[in-house]
Amino acid sequence: MLVTNLINVRYLSGFSGSNGALLVFADEREAVLSTDGRYRTQAAHQAPDLEVVIERAVARYLAGRAATDGVRTLGFESHVVTVDGLDALTGAVSEQNTELVRASGIVEGLREIKDAGELALLRLACEAADAALSDLVERGGLRPGRTERDVARELEALMLDHGAEAVSFETIVAAGPNSAIPHHRPTDAVLAAGDFVKIDFGALAAGYHSDMTRTFVLGSAADWQLEIYQLVSEAQRAGREALRAGIELREVDAAARRLIADAGYGDHFGHGLGHGVGLEIHEAPGIGATSAGTLLAGSVVTVEPGVYLPGRGGVRIEDTLVVPDSASQTAGQTPELLTRFPKELAIL
Amino acid sequence: MLVTNLINVRYLSGFSGSNGALLVFADEREAVLSTDGRYRTQAAHQAPDLEVVIERAVARYLAGRAATDGVRTLGFESHVVTVDGLDALTGAVSEQNTELVRASGIVEGLREIKDAGELALLRLACEAADAALSDLVERGGLRPGRTERDVARELEALMLDHGAEAVSFETIVAAGPNSAIPHHRPTDAVLAAGDFVKIDFGALAAGYHSDMTRTFVLGSAADWQLEIYQLVSEAQRAGREALRAGIELREVDAAARRLIADAGYGDHFGHGLGHGVGLEIHEAPGIGATSAGTLLAGSVVTVEPGVYLPGRGGVRIEDTLVVPDSASQTAGQTPELLTRFPKELAIL
Repeated sequence: MLVTNLINVRYLSGFSGSNGALLVFADEREAVLSTDGRYRTQAAHQAPDLEVVIERAVARYLAGRAATDGVRTLGFESHVVTVDGLDALTGAVSEQNTELVRASGIVEGLREIKDAGELALLRLACEAADAALSDLVERGGLRPGRTERDVARELEALMLDHGAEAVSFETIVAAGPNSAIPHHRPTDAVLAAGDFVKIDFGALAAGYHSDMTRTFVLGSAADWQLEIYQLVSEAQRAGREALRAGIELREVDAAARRLIADAGYGDHFGHGLGHGVGLEIHEAPGIGATSAGTLLAGSVVTVEPGVYLPGRGGVRIEDTLVVPDSASQTAGQTPELLTRFPKELAIL
Repeated sequence: MLVTNLINVRYLSGFSGSNGALLVFADEREAVLSTDGRYRTQAAHQAPDLEVVIERAVARYLAGRAATDGVRTLGFESHVVTVDGLDALTGAVSEQNTELVRASGIVEGLREIKDAGELALLRLACEAADAALSDLVERGGLRPGRTERDVARELEALMLDHGAEAVSFETIVAAGPNSAIPHHRPTDAVLAAGDFVKIDFGALAAGYHSDMTRTFVLGSAADWQLEIYQLVSEAQRAGREALRAGIELREVDAAARRLIADAGYGDHFGHGLGHGVGLEIHEAPGIGATSAGTLLAGSVVTVEPGVYLPGRGGVRIEDTLVVPDSASQTAGQTPELLTRFPKELAIL
């Protein structure tokens, strides 16, 4: 199989450069990694046990290599390879009559279940995020007069201080009416008393992402704010409690969405309940109203319902959790909560 | 034509969300933008003149929409659409017998020539980077004892202070032997007297990237350092002086590479001479030894030769410049230099 999704290449080989492909064999032959000259040293360091071939057109080279090595059937990632890219692969194998077959989502399926090493990195990433948000709140970083951008920069710096190798995605700090925008980029908007402040952010640890959202109120909370905060909080708890190996993904979504819809806010929760987290900030499984499939033991997912009232404000509460296996579940174990910052409404 | 490359969608419509597609017509019909519910407000704000349709499967929806609207021939970006994605598009248009045809690189071709508004943003991005590096050097930020990571964080914070909306890519700070690694991620390696310190970094202004590399020496320079610095400096000048509308791209590369090869360091310059810069940090045209095509007036490109001696150290000097049109060239105008930080060897 020819692996060209760079995240999948990293998952299987350890190589994290921006150009690379991996050829893996169904028999005992060792995998072959190809990358370009910029990454010669890095590839040797990150994938010391693999043959590394320096080439610019990495996928085409490896397809040709597979064909001349006698591979009769070569899988390719049809969800990643472009229409033009397939032409190049076809050209590379045509002389040997190697058949190219679709092999879409196979490595992503492997990635869905995290091993102990991956869980350790996800815990580290979530701990850095937790510690940064605690610091930010303790030092009074969330106060009227600051801009969204100031808060975002401070929080990102604090994550790096707590050992994050980078931020996991562009931090969302959304104050007042901006909190009603699910994915809002921080602006020079100034935090004011009475505002919701919604913060969605994460840290990166050796390539693994954390993802957490918390929503605060500055000064004092109005009744409508208390109402939707409590609603989202209950929906989020219902979503977390629904997490177990084998449950239909759409049932997890429904467990939370039902509460919001019953309260009359169904139209104000316009996104899915959650998603897998790992080497990508969004990966399998998606947890939404129309998601197919079931939740797997050992997967790591977010639970993040929200209610957004345009022009007024919105609340989202998001955790990242590990889905326990059935035996642990039967023994009473609940999903491991990786993002531990408190979720009670904090009026700062 | 169905535009699914998100950067191309942004270029044509102004919409910058992470999910979207654009349908543009060959006749007078207005383009249609599709994105999902997360971006309802943002899309209306960024593309106020376009019809915006909220859908999750944006490309499939727009292909179906084109078909039912009577489009007989629909272009798609075959360098972006995946093999599986084409299946979905084919399914969406099959009932109307709309023909899907490849339209690869068309918008990228438009993007190669920058208009006045784009040039203004590129200047802003480059100015923020220039100012940040000046500040860093003036305040003694490059000194023995600091780690590569410390320097990178400070430089990134300074770019934000100087108005960058974000960094344009992960800053490279490579000290001592690490400077021989063309793309090195900052580590806890400590800067030491006698080190080369190579810094490759950029700022983002409203989506437009800057890209610049400078190499310094700490304390005092050894003869081998002076030799390769001067060589790279001369090669970089030769590359800059070769920039003119109509020249073969590979001739630009050759103008710089020839000097390095003649000095016996050809094997130590393993990457292309430069690339276009705009809404992407790397975009058309690529300027390398095997690049096809010619340089266009109004394009913005980097010139960045390097010499890297494994285990010892390396030098890269990189500027971003605007290629003048033929008339200006004839009138004696040289390429506009956007990255103005000095290039004389600074021994700090």
